[in-house]
Amino acid sequence: MKNEKTVDIYAKSGMMFKNACPSWRSAEKRKAMIKVGIIGATGYAGAELVRLLQGHREARIVWYGSRSYIDKKYSEVYRNMFRIVEDVCRDDDLAQLAREADVIFTATPQGFLAGLLTEEILSRTKVVDLSADYRIKDVAVYEKWYGIEHKSPQFIPEAVYGLCEINRGQITDQTRLVANPGCYTTCSILTAYPLVKEGLIDPDTLIIDAKSGTSGAGRGAKVQNLFCEVNENIKAYGVATHRHTPEIEEQLGYARGSRVTVSFTPHLVPMNRGILVTEYARLTPKPDGSLPTPEEIRAVYEKYYGNELFIRLLEEGVCPETRWVEGSNYVDINFVVDERTGRVVLMGALDNLVKGAAGQAVQNMNLLFGLPEDEGLKLAPCFP
Amino acid sequence: MKNEKTVDIYAKSGMMFKNACPSWRSAEKRKAMIKVGIIGATGYAGAELVRLLQGHREARIVWYGSRSYIDKKYSEVYRNMFRIVEDVCRDDDLAQLAREADVIFTATPQGFLAGLLTEEILSRTKVVDLSADYRIKDVAVYEKWYGIEHKSPQFIPEAVYGLCEINRGQITDQTRLVANPGCYTTCSILTAYPLVKEGLIDPDTLIIDAKSGTSGAGRGAKVQNLFCEVNENIKAYGVATHRHTPEIEEQLGYARGSRVTVSFTPHLVPMNRGILVTEYARLTPKPDGSLPTPEEIRAVYEKYYGNELFIRLLEEGVCPETRWVEGSNYVDINFVVDERTGRVVLMGALDNLVKGAAGQAVQNMNLLFGLPEDEGLKLAPCFP
Amino acid sequence: MKNEKTVDIYAKSGMMFKNACPSWRSAEKRKAMIKVGIIGATGYAGAELVRLLQGHREARIVWYGSRSYIDKKYSEVYRNMFRIVEDVCRDDDLAQLAREADVIFTATPQGFLAGLLTEEILSRTKVVDLSADYRIKDVAVYEKWYGIEHKSPQFIPEAVYGLCEINRGQITDQTRLVANPGCYTTCSILTAYPLVKEGLIDPDTLIIDAKSGTSGAGRGAKVQNLFCEVNENIKAYGVATHRHTPEIEEQLGYARGSRVTVSFTPHLVPMNRGILVTEYARLTPKPDGSLPTPEEIRAVYEKYYGNELFIRLLEEGVCPETRWVEGSNYVDINFVVDERTGRVVLMGALDNLVKGAAGQAVQNMNLLFGLPEDEGLKLAPCFP
Amino acid sequence: MKNEKTVDIYAKSGMMFKNACPSWRSAEKRKAMIKVGIIGATGYAGAELVRLLQGHREARIVWYGSRSYIDKKYSEVYRNMFRIVEDVCRDDDLAQLAREADVIFTATPQGFLAGLLTEEILSRTKVVDLSADYRIKDVAVYEKWYGIEHKSPQFIPEAVYGLCEINRGQITDQTRLVANPGCYTTCSILTAYPLVKEGLIDPDTLIIDAKSGTSGAGRGAKVQNLFCEVNENIKAYGVATHRHTPEIEEQLGYARGSRVTVSFTPHLVPMNRGILVTEYARLTPKPDGSLPTPEEIRAVYEKYYGNELFIRLLEEGVCPETRWVEGSNYVDINFVVDERTGRVVLMGALDNLVKGAAGQAVQNMNLLFGLPEDEGLKLAPCFP
Repeated sequence: MKNEKTVDIYAKSGMMFKNACPSWRSAEKRKAMIKVGIIGATGYAGAELVRLLQGHREARIVWYGSRSYIDKKYSEVYRNMFRIVEDVCRDDDLAQLAREADVIFTATPQGFLAGLLTEEILSRTKVVDLSADYRIKDVAVYEKWYGIEHKSPQFIPEAVYGLCEINRGQITDQTRLVANPGCYTTCSILTAYPLVKEGLIDPDTLIIDAKSGTSGAGRGAKVQNLFCEVNENIKAYGVATHRHTPEIEEQLGYARGSRVTVSFTPHLVPMNRGILVTEYARLTPKPDGSLPTPEEIRAVYEKYYGNELFIRLLEEGVCPETRWVEGSNYVDINFVVDERTGRVVLMGALDNLVKGAAGQAVQNMNLLFGLPEDEGLKLAPCFP
Repeated sequence: MKNEKTVDIYAKSGMMFKNACPSWRSAEKRKAMIKVGIIGATGYAGAELVRLLQGHREARIVWYGSRSYIDKKYSEVYRNMFRIVEDVCRDDDLAQLAREADVIFTATPQGFLAGLLTEEILSRTKVVDLSADYRIKDVAVYEKWYGIEHKSPQFIPEAVYGLCEINRGQITDQTRLVANPGCYTTCSILTAYPLVKEGLIDPDTLIIDAKSGTSGAGRGAKVQNLFCEVNENIKAYGVATHRHTPEIEEQLGYARGSRVTVSFTPHLVPMNRGILVTEYARLTPKPDGSLPTPEEIRAVYEKYYGNELFIRLLEEGVCPETRWVEGSNYVDINFVVDERTGRVVLMGALDNLVKGAAGQAVQNMNLLFGLPEDEGLKLAPCFP
Repeated sequence: MKNEKTVDIYAKSGMMFKNACPSWRSAEKRKAMIKVGIIGATGYAGAELVRLLQGHREARIVWYGSRSYIDKKYSEVYRNMFRIVEDVCRDDDLAQLAREADVIFTATPQGFLAGLLTEEILSRTKVVDLSADYRIKDVAVYEKWYGIEHKSPQFIPEAVYGLCEINRGQITDQTRLVANPGCYTTCSILTAYPLVKEGLIDPDTLIIDAKSGTSGAGRGAKVQNLFCEVNENIKAYGVATHRHTPEIEEQLGYARGSRVTVSFTPHLVPMNRGILVTEYARLTPKPDGSLPTPEEIRAVYEKYYGNELFIRLLEEGVCPETRWVEGSNYVDINFVVDERTGRVVLMGALDNLVKGAAGQAVQNMNLLFGLPEDEGLKLAPCFP
Repeated sequence: MKNEKTVDIYAKSGMMFKNACPSWRSAEKRKAMIKVGIIGATGYAGAELVRLLQGHREARIVWYGSRSYIDKKYSEVYRNMFRIVEDVCRDDDLAQLAREADVIFTATPQGFLAGLLTEEILSRTKVVDLSADYRIKDVAVYEKWYGIEHKSPQFIPEAVYGLCEINRGQITDQTRLVANPGCYTTCSILTAYPLVKEGLIDPDTLIIDAKSGTSGAGRGAKVQNLFCEVNENIKAYGVATHRHTPEIEEQLGYARGSRVTVSFTPHLVPMNRGILVTEYARLTPKPDGSLPTPEEIRAVYEKYYGNELFIRLLEEGVCPETRWVEGSNYVDINFVVDERTGRVVLMGALDNLVKGAAGQAVQNMNLLFGLPEDEGLKLAPCFP
């Protein structure tokens, strides 16, 4: 049913000027909108949340949290938002924010939220955590890979792992805490999930070679992320030790029904945005000893993703490329069967700041509040 | 009054899926929308038109013209549009297109439209020409700088130079032909216009040093535009001979009220999008011999651009940067008075594919059809 | 007055001016130098040969072959060579060139040399072929992967595969034809060779995920290699079908002593130069069931590469990066043992135009003429 | 057998391995070489000194000064130098260094050297200062533009401004202190010098629009120099206030014979290396009222630069590009006369780390020690 309110909502749509020109919305409308607080609004993922939420018709940002820039106008830090966002940055006061916001996005370093989260906060507001604090169910695994003590493990059980296409059913208006998946993780899992789930590949042979643009490294002032250090270079890092590994293993383990161990190697690429994963796995022979055919593999992907709005299974022979998803919430996926080796090569591409962070966070928010899942996310990829 | 039709329009807003999911719009709605044809839809400017029009609530593309890719699916050429645009590319049949479309965008090489345009076409449809064919009123100047004969000079007088912020009043539902300004030109003129108009600078001392991203060079397969030739390089080109020079001079001449001669030098920068102009001019002393103050200059800019949606006069001391306008229809402008030299340095930045091409073309279309000027253009700049 | 010392200084000069100022060398000296002809001198690999040979004290270029630029000054095509190279480009007359040159480098498309090579040519001059024509011993394999008929298979048996660090002993003054290895191949093989040779890994589990800068795609004018298409993008290509695969398999097969089948996936990275390979393989358990230790693996690398001038086994924990080898003939190699998965991750980096093409070709020339192997190749990597 | 010739070969070696393999040089040879100390060896300019001096046959580095990395191996900071440089970084002890080195290069922040330089140091060693401390003769101008007090103005008079092509005659074995010019400055001055000197242009109309790669911003960890902030962006900065302005004005003032005031605007370009200047000036009419012809302008350039090894006056119609000088000590220069405006457009390109910093510093060292000016600088530009 489209009632007066709905009409109003859509009437004020579009990508921007909403906050800049509050008069565009009636007082009642603004009152009715979801009030969003962002902690870490001046990091790259936080800034992408700000950008995406300009185009969201049911949410408005009430708190631009940034410890580094308290009292500074947000648009002085991100000048693309000049004349669009008029607010100033505020401190990271989670307790106060819980009183003012319907949902809080925490785009913060590991351990930050775990150190501050309380029952009272969760009783007042929903939290979508873009850090890793509640992604891993086994706290010992978290503490081992992250090298820090988890300060509030009591909330881990209730946290839903917000990989929407897989766990959509668990993210409802009853959910209080969503652990938004990592960028590498989202791409790695979605690319392999149907084949693991259906047993077409042997997950213990799974090798994930991932490549990321530099925005994934954050906006911290580090020599290693200077232009001249990244440009004209490619390197692997965190080999055999990257923290997204256990997250991938846990989720693929659920798909398989038993523990999975994978090789995961991230690489830094001289570009701003984008993640590409190239995954290798041995195909599971069928009872007659033959390997699954490309058609059978495609059918499995279609079974799981055929109706997904944000997953595009590409046409045969087309390799995913990060440029084709830039700025959007899409994941592009395809595969090649290599009969010579008995392996299948899976490929997936997404924008690490959108589907790999802020876009998926908004998608989770939409689920939490019963909105259309694509609200604020109908973004055509921008090329070149 | 918000009638049923308006509601419908807005209800289907957003950036995409419109063409992909035609069922989202009722048959009546689709019928009522402006039918758009694009000639040159697979060039970079044409592709940006396609992207922008996905988010336009009153227009739908009925013709994806591309001589190079006839009968090929558009989304096979621009794979970002996979699952968004289902159409195939069609030939450049301007006459037939005039029967099917309410407005035609020609994103074509110089001379193309001039060679095909007829009274019959203009009697059936409106044309927004992204080439230079109708930008220059003096056909001799056109022929000298472009080195080709103009095949239909009879249409030059009626063509309106579509620099919206300056010529908005001339672009109405009576207009048949809009000459969409060049990318360098838009940036160069808008940056200097108020100061020339008000006589604050001596236009004959105006020097425009312009820098452009590589998408401005088009999608033609040329060695000079290969990645390895452009990357890690900057160069000037077309020094003292670039074809945007007379276009700038003509328009600034109108502002001044007499002929203007400028130096214009374009440079190629290793980035995809963006134009930055740095302009130098001698300040005109006031009657008392003193120079205009920064406050006075700012006031003049405010007078002309204070209410402009797409022109952002930056805060004092902030230099325009292309990254802050990328993907949007904004022009960011600022200036520095250099008392030592008696000159003012003007700076302007825009996205060459948006405000410098497709965005401005859509802005012109909106004016032609009496729509809100920002329809389909409420785009927050995307960074990083 | 040119005294002994002055002469000496210039005679032993560094990187350039040699050809530009021939008078710097005495007539006798120039006469005694190796006369080099290059076919394909205006491709990227050919141009790198030109650059490197400027600094070679025993060789001078007598023929800049370039069918596309016949009679054009070489320095008009590669303006970095202005005032350094005065010669004009000449046609691809292999027969005439064989009379004028002591050695010919062919940096040409696949099939070119195979179509022209004759006994007479080889009786007059040595040939270092940078194409794939004589790399693969089994002509059927060549014809299958390259999709063309091999026109002179009779020369395949005598061709030496010029991977200097492995086959150095076979490249002597008696050798007439050297098949210079491919760029991906050189990096892939050298990175894995000692472990395959010594049986520390199971080569049939070997997965090579390779990333290359764009100069590897050549200087042909193709849309897919335009700046805007490559910049801000990463993609895989030639998945399961890339032609360097059989070359890698053949050479690693020799090391192992039996056939090897590998997965090889190349990727295109937005940078000019550099190849990085990330290789995954299962470690072969020792008789007691334990895996080889990092120390044992390192010892094997040291055994093979400890005295190699151009292979740098990095310190523990340091990952190879392309920036650290750019412009040089180095291959940087390292590895990480992943006990969780029982796999080892091998990494290798080189400059695709130097060690991956022209540098190795010069290294082969040095071996062919009994010169110090590093003559003309003592190049410190250039960063940033 | 190592005969005289073999020894000779290695003694005159090329780019590297010298320090890595000291045994390659005889003890006497090493003893006789110029002992070089570098303060600031781990900045980009310092690192380029290290790279260039690997190929210098008469100098060896005895002190790698780096306060940030004391006791750390140099090759752990710059891994391109792994196996080439074995030394560790040392503190900035200028007094001790003066006892150990024949010449000190200071690649340090402004004010550093001025605060430490003493008569005793200068009595023991020569100093080539890559900072601005002794470039400007008028200490008041220095203090105004740099905003710091000059701690040792007594040494300013004796400092020679080391723009070799102009001041070569003043740099002798008697010189103790060389002020190495700035990167923008070298390019800006050399491009305009002959025309100013000969009065062909009016220097007060000179406008210098300069573009620099990002290595010019140094290796400091600043947000503004992160990859994602610089990539896909161009901006002006320091408009009307950049510190290289008075340096340009002073030197061009000497050429003209009277004070000169110029507009100078630097821009940051997303590339590692390279500076391009585009300069605009009004041509001085000849007595008969006509303007200087291109031939006359070219003749003036030839008069001053015709015999210069490192200045390449390009052929007519060819614009300088930074890619053609990368990695070399060249400055490429050309000009276009614009009769329409009565102006000439001058263009110059160099590598900011070579001719704009370390290369020119080595050139100055060569002059100080009576060596061939191009020793260690015979570097062919590296492309792509």
